[in-house]
Amino acid sequence: MIYSSLFTDLYEITMSAIYYKYFKNAKGKFELWVRNIPENRGYLIFSGLRFVIEYLKNFHFEKNEIEYLKNLEVFKNVDNDFFDYLLNLKFEGNLWAMDEGSLFFENEPVIRIEGGIVETQIVETALLNFITYNTLIATKASRIVYFSSIDGEKRNIVEFGARRAPSFLASIYAAYSSYIGGFDGTSNLYAGKVFNIPVFGTMAHSFVLSFEDELEAFKKYYDVFPDSTILLVDTFDTEKGVEKVKNAGKNVRAIRIDSGNIIESSKKAREILDRDGLNETGIFISGDLDEYKIFEIVENKSPVNGFGVGTKLVTNSDCPYLSTIYKLVEFENEGKIKKVGKLSEDKITYPGAKQIFRFEENGYFKKDVVCEKGEEIEEREKLLKKYIENGKVIRNVPGIEKIREYVKKQLEKLPEKYKKLENPEKYPVEFSDKLKKNLKKLKEKNG
Amino acid sequence: MIYSSLFTDLYEITMSAIYYKYFKNAKGKFELWVRNIPENRGYLIFSGLRFVIEYLKNFHFEKNEIEYLKNLEVFKNVDNDFFDYLLNLKFEGNLWAMDEGSLFFENEPVIRIEGGIVETQIVETALLNFITYNTLIATKASRIVYFSSIDGEKRNIVEFGARRAPSFLASIYAAYSSYIGGFDGTSNLYAGKVFNIPVFGTMAHSFVLSFEDELEAFKKYYDVFPDSTILLVDTFDTEKGVEKVKNAGKNVRAIRIDSGNIIESSKKAREILDRDGLNETGIFISGDLDEYKIFEIVENKSPVNGFGVGTKLVTNSDCPYLSTIYKLVEFENEGKIKKVGKLSEDKITYPGAKQIFRFEENGYFKKDVVCEKGEEIEEREKLLKKYIENGKVIRNVPGIEKIREYVKKQLEKLPEKYKKLENPEKYPVEFSDKLKKNLKKLKEKNG
Repeated sequence: MIYSSLFTDLYEITMSAIYYKYFKNAKGKFELWVRNIPENRGYLIFSGLRFVIEYLKNFHFEKNEIEYLKNLEVFKNVDNDFFDYLLNLKFEGNLWAMDEGSLFFENEPVIRIEGGIVETQIVETALLNFITYNTLIATKASRIVYFSSIDGEKRNIVEFGARRAPSFLASIYAAYSSYIGGFDGTSNLYAGKVFNIPVFGTMAHSFVLSFEDELEAFKKYYDVFPDSTILLVDTFDTEKGVEKVKNAGKNVRAIRIDSGNIIESSKKAREILDRDGLNETGIFISGDLDEYKIFEIVENKSPVNGFGVGTKLVTNSDCPYLSTIYKLVEFENEGKIKKVGKLSEDKITYPGAKQIFRFEENGYFKKDVVCEKGEEIEEREKLLKKYIENGKVIRNVPGIEKIREYVKKQLEKLPEKYKKLENPEKYPVEFSDKLKKNLKKLKEKNG
Repeated sequence: MIYSSLFTDLYEITMSAIYYKYFKNAKGKFELWVRNIPENRGYLIFSGLRFVIEYLKNFHFEKNEIEYLKNLEVFKNVDNDFFDYLLNLKFEGNLWAMDEGSLFFENEPVIRIEGGIVETQIVETALLNFITYNTLIATKASRIVYFSSIDGEKRNIVEFGARRAPSFLASIYAAYSSYIGGFDGTSNLYAGKVFNIPVFGTMAHSFVLSFEDELEAFKKYYDVFPDSTILLVDTFDTEKGVEKVKNAGKNVRAIRIDSGNIIESSKKAREILDRDGLNETGIFISGDLDEYKIFEIVENKSPVNGFGVGTKLVTNSDCPYLSTIYKLVEFENEGKIKKVGKLSEDKITYPGAKQIFRFEENGYFKKDVVCEKGEEIEEREKLLKKYIENGKVIRNVPGIEKIREYVKKQLEKLPEKYKKLENPEKYPVEFSDKLKKNLKKLKEKNG
């Protein structure tokens, strides 16, 4: 993935010009979290850390980028000093983060960035960008996987969204984060190559239409791909299509149905396949699927063995955005440390750097407690870990299979009430007395 | 923009292996269109052609990409011949398209690709990807612009979505397509540089919190940016924030309000600014805006001069996806031409290559007629134009300002009933008798 450090908002640079002028050596601590968990989500899966680290490691401005900035009318009063400083700027701060694939909840910081005020400010835009979409995808994917096997039967789920993903890069994220979330593979070859994700595919209607008749198309495909043939049977008439499978080849792996009433047509197709002795040939479904539709299909005992999920996953159609925010929690200038927060009724932000602990009961997650950094709660694992120290990566994001396994294990520990299709319960996140006291102090100070 | 040609679905390559084996010299014609226009859209703005052309010009596989494919288990029966062929493959076909920024409607092809069956098939995934998101953004942006000045007053609209866009590349598309759709600029520096889009910015809450008090933050910002200062006034208390503006500097361009009841707080802010003689200082609004919210704000006569629109634009939140499809309409093998289409009741696809003509009445668009390619309807402009011929670009996409102007002129010609906020009327798209006859023939042939 190639990112430009110019992938930032203009105001990050204008503010930095002033920081540079007045607070040259000031330091900031920023935290990134989700303000409101969406209605039909009882948990979120943290994803995108891999891209955050890659970006911070390579953070720098190119000469031509600095030239562009210098020539903007808005910077006419800004000294060259500042632009020279930008040209030499690297990320030399610290990154604290939850592990990639961690479950998290409302108001829990998943990332803390510490360092010079300019570098910690400028990276805001990119960090929010990486985490928002990847987290949405990993979370939705895990729901799709969960409801696809709600009857206890494991079904294959493949990510089919490349064509409708909001950009090439988004399609790569979608394949990566849906795999973490529990999908079994992707149709996206680029993502398959880069992340070593298993790739799957079937055939298109255009393919069937290129041949003299449907059966010929089926036979020719089977001829070249005898171990992996999935025949698209609904180009003309689904039932008639299924009738032809027995003549296409002995080991057709599956048929695909992409239209019509899936519940009815899958049952009819199963009957025909079984009648023809094709008990091993599976039924694979695609077309406008999401967790709601899949739940309906499974609940109706449709004999389906797998799903290809595209558009509604890659656009997070039932919940297209997430209220991710990146906020200053501590500011240090000339030895003076100021813990900052937000005091309005509806948007409370506890001041100061934080740490998070998760409590279990009978093998299930029970509650999280957010503390001030440094507060020790028993001998418990800290959820925020240091990944970058003074600009050097000191902890690596594991391989994709390990992350996928980690997600799976956590989801098994999450009680069902937080995993409901609609209106799941709210997982308890508590704030320590120390944080509450700090907030109260800040309130009193600001009147 | 850098794309890999491996940005495609696995099935495009498996199908191509069979095409290569059985129809080495076959040719295909594919058309790309939108099957169903979303509920609250009365028109669409074609955007993304720029990226399609760039991609087709550079279409090729790298050696390491071919190695990856060869080593996939699924290709174990496929001869090396095919992979050598892929390694040398370029796009040598034709691209027909509407001009970038053209208004279009349901079931109208906006792109036609003609060429060898393999290359025309493989490009499906990327082409759908480029057009879907860009078209959604350009269309939504144009609605936002329209409703922001529904009272006749022009307001500045800036794209603020980089942080919540689904990927870095999506943020670039969002800035490009929203500018085409009528936005006045973006906060995204990278997009600003690449497309020469005006860039705008204000300040963040973190900036205000870094200073001893709000007024000091205001003064320091104004000191460096006296001609472009937009003061964020809602960090503590909006009214108290506005009271401080007069002491920040004489020519503060605007204030920004990012939270609370915008209708009330903008009216109150206007009062305070006017009382303090700051009649020239504008009011700029941000925070979860879209055309619905903006319409409400404008309709309530809020004294607002500009809007920053982010999350809900870049995620197309009221309509996150579009039913774009790419379908084979003609297949030619060994001199035999077959026009193909889809016959099912709900998904009619007229067979054969098409052309589109637009009719006007009293200076307004009246209806479109889709014909078979070659059918001449009077002496009228053809909406589909040839951009690439035998792999060579013969027509260029104009500069971004020209496209923006073109969009504006077309929208002025589109009757109001197609531009409604909710449930706009359906613009009439007719199909020629010739197309209908061809469809009937195909139906009879297929029984």
